[in-house]
Amino acid sequence: MDPTDPLPKALGSLLESFQAGKKTALARAISLIEDERPGFQGFLHRVLTLGPRARRVGLTGPPGGGKSSLIAALAYLCRAREEEVGVVAVDPTSPYSGGALLGDRIRMNDLATDRGIFIRSMATRGSLGGLAATSKEVIDLMDAFGLARLLIETVGVGQTELGITGAVDTVVVVLVPESGDGIQAMKAGLMEIADIFVVNKADRPGADRVFGDLRAALHLRAGNTSRWAVPVLKTVASTAEGVPELLDAVDQHREYLDESGELRIRQRGRAAVRVREVTERSLRGILWGGEASDVILEAGLDEIQQGLATPYSVSASILKALFAENAT
Amino acid sequence: MDPTDPLPKALGSLLESFQAGKKTALARAISLIEDERPGFQGFLHRVLTLGPRARRVGLTGPPGGGKSSLIAALAYLCRAREEEVGVVAVDPTSPYSGGALLGDRIRMNDLATDRGIFIRSMATRGSLGGLAATSKEVIDLMDAFGLARLLIETVGVGQTELGITGAVDTVVVVLVPESGDGIQAMKAGLMEIADIFVVNKADRPGADRVFGDLRAALHLRAGNTSRWAVPVLKTVASTAEGVPELLDAVDQHREYLDESGELRIRQRGRAAVRVREVTERSLRGILWGGEASDVILEAGLDEIQQGLATPYSVSASILKALFAENAT
Repeated sequence: MDPTDPLPKALGSLLESFQAGKKTALARAISLIEDERPGFQGFLHRVLTLGPRARRVGLTGPPGGGKSSLIAALAYLCRAREEEVGVVAVDPTSPYSGGALLGDRIRMNDLATDRGIFIRSMATRGSLGGLAATSKEVIDLMDAFGLARLLIETVGVGQTELGITGAVDTVVVVLVPESGDGIQAMKAGLMEIADIFVVNKADRPGADRVFGDLRAALHLRAGNTSRWAVPVLKTVASTAEGVPELLDAVDQHREYLDESGELRIRQRGRAAVRVREVTERSLRGILWGGEASDVILEAGLDEIQQGLATPYSVSASILKALFAENAT
Repeated sequence: MDPTDPLPKALGSLLESFQAGKKTALARAISLIEDERPGFQGFLHRVLTLGPRARRVGLTGPPGGGKSSLIAALAYLCRAREEEVGVVAVDPTSPYSGGALLGDRIRMNDLATDRGIFIRSMATRGSLGGLAATSKEVIDLMDAFGLARLLIETVGVGQTELGITGAVDTVVVVLVPESGDGIQAMKAGLMEIADIFVVNKADRPGADRVFGDLRAALHLRAGNTSRWAVPVLKTVASTAEGVPELLDAVDQHREYLDESGELRIRQRGRAAVRVREVTERSLRGILWGGEASDVILEAGLDEIQQGLATPYSVSASILKALFAENAT
């Protein structure tokens, strides 16, 4: 449980390779985190002390907006500036089928041979919408590895995009010139999380209307006391039109965060969420990992079905046993 | 923490009115649960010992399928059979705006003056998609009150419909004659949770195609070892066409569950999930409710920003304090 305990031997050598900047070590460390293998928290504890250094950009919005193409275009541009780039695509996964939707990933393939870019696709796994704790930890890991620019794609279906604020500095919301998008953006809470709006596929009809709708809605937005005026940009990812301007806006937003002191506030907020998630996950592990809770649960279910107990009395017994077992 | 502790005085008289069958007491008890006010778990512990008795039917599917109208039509029919009916509509709520989308609720208004029906609309509140633990507890409460038929509507956006299996006996998935619906149903995992499929608005073009697609997909479904053959029905909620047949299918499914012994298995599974949820919620309350965890967290965030700690070492300190405080 204690992350300062000595690492298992295999992880010690993985840590060395990771700190020496070997890409294969990064890939292996990511698997370690994703599978939550023994020692993964100790590993993270050792690499995260430097704190976040990367510029973290999140792209979200409804499916079909061309987010992957936009990320590919941004990645090309960052590579041209000799930045090392990490790309994380979080796929929505059916909790039943277990398979990720890989279609959009294919377009990334021509970037994949570039040694200055690291691409990882992951499932949301268990977290119904939103970024799972382990996904955020993988992003931290890529940051700690030294990748200077992290581009993170989450598919926004309903409210699933909201978790992205817990992992990035700058949230880019990507819409397309389809009717209703502006209104949907407001409904889904996208208005509240967007640092930058992009109307992608802006060569298609209706782009100007969505552009205008968004600008009007942003102007009317109540309670916006930030000094950052959320820009609305037009892009055509397939031709990279407007993409340099988007990257400029992202960097301006980062400068604003830095100078206003908001970056430290956001990073502190993110750390607080992370501590809570890490603590609750460990605690769930302790709670349900022991044999005692299993025995009490099964016996309790019998009693519930016989009308002798309720979930509340069974739960009280489980907690009593937990604290008795772990008394220090 | 112990649900067998004496109830606060005010809850004692609420319990009496509830058990005497007073509707106002049900409404007040629901607020008690939704607000998680002190003693709510003790209250639930006292009313739930009889176990589930109501016929619980869940309606889910993509927005715009006419689920509310279908529930209204089903409720009319149940009332004509002199069943007491409870309706629960779970609204997706932006975690930011806090307001529920009430549009669909309006159609319920003419039912609301009937004393044999109890309608409650609630938000998902905090649980990103899916039925929050408190929503399930409200359903339990309506069951314990003695309403014989519970109709529960959840809006299926992406994966949010999945939680409904944790609250009902029979899941009705409602689709409409729009292209792609059949395929989307498979993607979203609806295939796995449907006990009955309904093609609503079946007077519109394309109904036959969706109907056929669903039947074919159900036929091809791998690994279906259940003896229940999922029926596909057509309805027009606005004219109540096909609604009696739907209610018949629902009752047939309930009979199947009863006779096959699956009802007891499902109820036991639901109870297990409830115990886990109740336990984890209580534990989170204990974990973050104390002053110690706040102090450790704030000091820890300072240390994280100074590079002296990580979320993992701070989390370990919080857990150490938790177990020291609650040692028995």
